[in-house]
Amino acid sequence: MVFTKRTSIRTRQQGDAHDITDVIAAAVRESACRTGIATVCVVGSTAAITTIEFESGAIADFDRLLERLAPRDAAYQHHLRWNDDNGSSHVRAALLGPSVTIPFENSQLVLGTWQQVMLLECDTRGRQREIVVQVMGE
Amino acid sequence: MVFTKRTSIRTRQQGDAHDITDVIAAAVRESACRTGIATVCVVGSTAAITTIEFESGAIADFDRLLERLAPRDAAYQHHLRWNDDNGSSHVRAALLGPSVTIPFENSQLVLGTWQQVMLLECDTRGRQREIVVQVMGE
Amino acid sequence: MVFTKRTSIRTRQQGDAHDITDVIAAAVRESACRTGIATVCVVGSTAAITTIEFESGAIADFDRLLERLAPRDAAYQHHLRWNDDNGSSHVRAALLGPSVTIPFENSQLVLGTWQQVMLLECDTRGRQREIVVQVMGE
Repeated sequence: MVFTKRTSIRTRQQGDAHDITDVIAAAVRESACRTGIATVCVVGSTAAITTIEFESGAIADFDRLLERLAPRDAAYQHHLRWNDDNGSSHVRAALLGPSVTIPFENSQLVLGTWQQVMLLECDTRGRQREIVVQVMGE
Repeated sequence: MVFTKRTSIRTRQQGDAHDITDVIAAAVRESACRTGIATVCVVGSTAAITTIEFESGAIADFDRLLERLAPRDAAYQHHLRWNDDNGSSHVRAALLGPSVTIPFENSQLVLGTWQQVMLLECDTRGRQREIVVQVMGE
Repeated sequence: MVFTKRTSIRTRQQGDAHDITDVIAAAVRESACRTGIATVCVVGSTAAITTIEFESGAIADFDRLLERLAPRDAAYQHHLRWNDDNGSSHVRAALLGPSVTIPFENSQLVLGTWQQVMLLECDTRGRQREIVVQVMGE
């Protein structure tokens, strides 16, 4: 059985983080599957999805790590080719990946109490982000 | 068809690595599915799963990379908020992700001979880790 | 319903990037599934799969990031153990992961217009790479 849920989230800037755990949990409940997997994917090449303890300290630490790895104001070949300013966004998103797959049992995602699924805006400006949750199971 | 296997692994310290390939291969065999995917996920926000050639040199190299990216003894905002010491654990785990999905055919995971699935403890102390393998297929 | 597609790609050197989106899209079409997920996985521990805007600037930026994180000519314990030269390959591949899972609806992958699935060679020499696409859906 397959159940699809789409949702749209407005982000504000690079590093903007959204807790999307409830969106996925709701999709699992609406699917009426008891056991299976939920794949959540963000459409586009300048955003990412992972899990984290969703509190402002850990989120700021993660943003600082990404800024150190791929500074926003560094020189990128992507800028030269497209006269764009979001080279840092592309390499951050490629490093993190666009999707995460989480198992569920008894209609409950197998996440820890302090573990949330995060949509992370990597682009240099806010965007309207499309999220697709695909629930597969029985 | 969906088959769930849970297992628990005791880790000892940050960087402790466990080869969990056999756990996943056994879940595939027990599922009686011949073709499909196995998703393996660790519960919690301070551990990660990926694949690697599971030999002590590559594991040490990977640990050194993570220590350079997110040094254990650096200052983290997560520490200030929670009086905790595992900011490095949270950012390492968020970078690597909590789950991997591996296809299988003829009940065999499509991994290379020198490619194993690794549970990596990122927390600053040993933990009892819960692993969930979800096998989907036919 | 499960549909498996295998393909083989010849890579030339470390950093060689291949757009494999069409391989996955074709597998989805051939599967006759309308809704589901496609998991694409590379066999072996020195290559990786992620998504990126597949243009030469962003690909070069990503390669430069990986070279900074895990320089090819640095000292690796993996080299000492196996008299090998691809320690950088192993840690890059472990960081990025071997597989990506993408949902599809109406037989279309939910990717952005400027978002492609990339096979990235991380090994220090060209390799014959085996890619497995597992399509699951209905």
